[in-house]
Amino acid sequence: MKKRKDPKKIPVSDLGEFGLIERVRRRIKTDRSVIKGTGDDCAVLKLDEKNYQLFTCDMIVEGVDFTLKDDPYLIGRKAVAVSVSDIAACAGIPRYCVVSLGLPKGRSLDFCDKLIKGMLSVVNKHKINLAGGDISRAKELVLDVSMLGVVEKKRLVLRSGAKEKDLIFVTGALGGSILGKHLKFTPRLKEARFLVKNFKINSMIDISDGLIQDLGHILKSSSKGALIYENSIPLSRAARGLDDALYSGEDFELIFTMSAAEAKKLFRAKPDWISLIGEITDQASGLRLLDKNGKEKAVRPKGFRHF
Amino acid sequence: MKKRKDPKKIPVSDLGEFGLIERVRRRIKTDRSVIKGTGDDCAVLKLDEKNYQLFTCDMIVEGVDFTLKDDPYLIGRKAVAVSVSDIAACAGIPRYCVVSLGLPKGRSLDFCDKLIKGMLSVVNKHKINLAGGDISRAKELVLDVSMLGVVEKKRLVLRSGAKEKDLIFVTGALGGSILGKHLKFTPRLKEARFLVKNFKINSMIDISDGLIQDLGHILKSSSKGALIYENSIPLSRAARGLDDALYSGEDFELIFTMSAAEAKKLFRAKPDWISLIGEITDQASGLRLLDKNGKEKAVRPKGFRHF
Repeated sequence: MKKRKDPKKIPVSDLGEFGLIERVRRRIKTDRSVIKGTGDDCAVLKLDEKNYQLFTCDMIVEGVDFTLKDDPYLIGRKAVAVSVSDIAACAGIPRYCVVSLGLPKGRSLDFCDKLIKGMLSVVNKHKINLAGGDISRAKELVLDVSMLGVVEKKRLVLRSGAKEKDLIFVTGALGGSILGKHLKFTPRLKEARFLVKNFKINSMIDISDGLIQDLGHILKSSSKGALIYENSIPLSRAARGLDDALYSGEDFELIFTMSAAEAKKLFRAKPDWISLIGEITDQASGLRLLDKNGKEKAVRPKGFRHF
Repeated sequence: MKKRKDPKKIPVSDLGEFGLIERVRRRIKTDRSVIKGTGDDCAVLKLDEKNYQLFTCDMIVEGVDFTLKDDPYLIGRKAVAVSVSDIAACAGIPRYCVVSLGLPKGRSLDFCDKLIKGMLSVVNKHKINLAGGDISRAKELVLDVSMLGVVEKKRLVLRSGAKEKDLIFVTGALGGSILGKHLKFTPRLKEARFLVKNFKINSMIDISDGLIQDLGHILKSSSKGALIYENSIPLSRAARGLDDALYSGEDFELIFTMSAAEAKKLFRAKPDWISLIGEITDQASGLRLLDKNGKEKAVRPKGFRHF
């Protein structure tokens, strides 16, 4: 018989980010006003007859999501943009945010001004109301943005709606985000709204942890598999190879799936910012990659993890 | 002529917590759906015909708001309770929250379990829906809770409503919170709701930075002064003297003001958890303390500051 380890001696890193999230999720009880709690890009809450409210938070931390060598304007910008990207992934419109700032004592006023200016650049661009905040002393710089959005009930898109034979698309180009894009990306808000206004989108997620890992979230939530065509994956100029596009995080592009019939309509509209990269299969087939030699291989859903 | 200092050389601590908040506030534009933005315990947003939505966030940081020697259950508990206290200060009912967790890699699973259990104890007690979250690696433990609440329009109480000759009350007893209460307090939610359901409350705030400093926020927002009676200030058993009750933070009691006529009704109800501590005066009189010898002296609004 295997002895269970003392939980006091198991580091939380053994469980991993997703293990810990799952552990919390199992213990949470929510009432019927919560349409979708943890496990999507945003929480989805009852609002009124026609709309849901979206609620999300994202924390960025010095040494993990940025360094102090980065332009503070871009750090502030990123803090807000990642939450906007979450709202976009649920096809919503961002409306309000509050910001918590953990600030090391020695930072200069100039640094803070730039940080704030960066935050406001995204807030103002999307007409979001920055409605409050909290400032605390901290040893390392931490920014946490919580955002509220709104989405028409009929236009809400979750990770869990992918259907067999759906075609899989991504926006933009992938890979190499670490070289700069992760600080400068524009959340795909306009594109997400264009998509849900004109087509029936079955599932969607933003790429924060890498194409394979985030597609993996769609597959798990939808109980499906997928076949991805290596040759169709749009590489960004900064990408240092295919693996970079598959596994590196923070592209903040969207992955979405739709039926072939809907996809025909999409192709007629010819947006130049989408790429067809594969199709949804049954769950038993898992996640597979068709490489450039026409060979299929299984792919492990790995990508960026915080632990 | 005085030369202006280079902002790159001014540490943000020179500006102070409230200076920085004021600096951000001046640059924010919000639309008409924001009834009250920064500058109260919660942001107040349009919701429906009868209700407003409340939105608040509070970040607690290792070494500032708790130490790693504290019971992780109590740390988790506090992270949620401070936001509940903000909702209470606006007389609302907490409904939803999301939690961002910055977690050092080495923490044990047992530690995390206790942290989560502590959070859920408050969440479950008040029937709040924990609807989502974000986990990130961090060098020091950081918890940020964002909370949504609801309040009937007619029952909303802000800091800005104090009127001359209002009587000033506090709940509970003050001082010495650092010895334990700051980790174990019960947010005055029930009491706040009792007050607004039965009386006309003109202004309210929770004591997070000390009686004098937080009363100072009411006075500033309301453009009023106040006279406080030293002998009437309810000292907790843990308080190490009057100054502790006046200036030390994290009592998480409520300060509220109401007209003398309403106060008569309150006295008839005889709740044993309130104390009359003074009255609102005109702004020119400032904040004064009537000491036990019957002497009045001016009081500076000092208290806990994060910088």
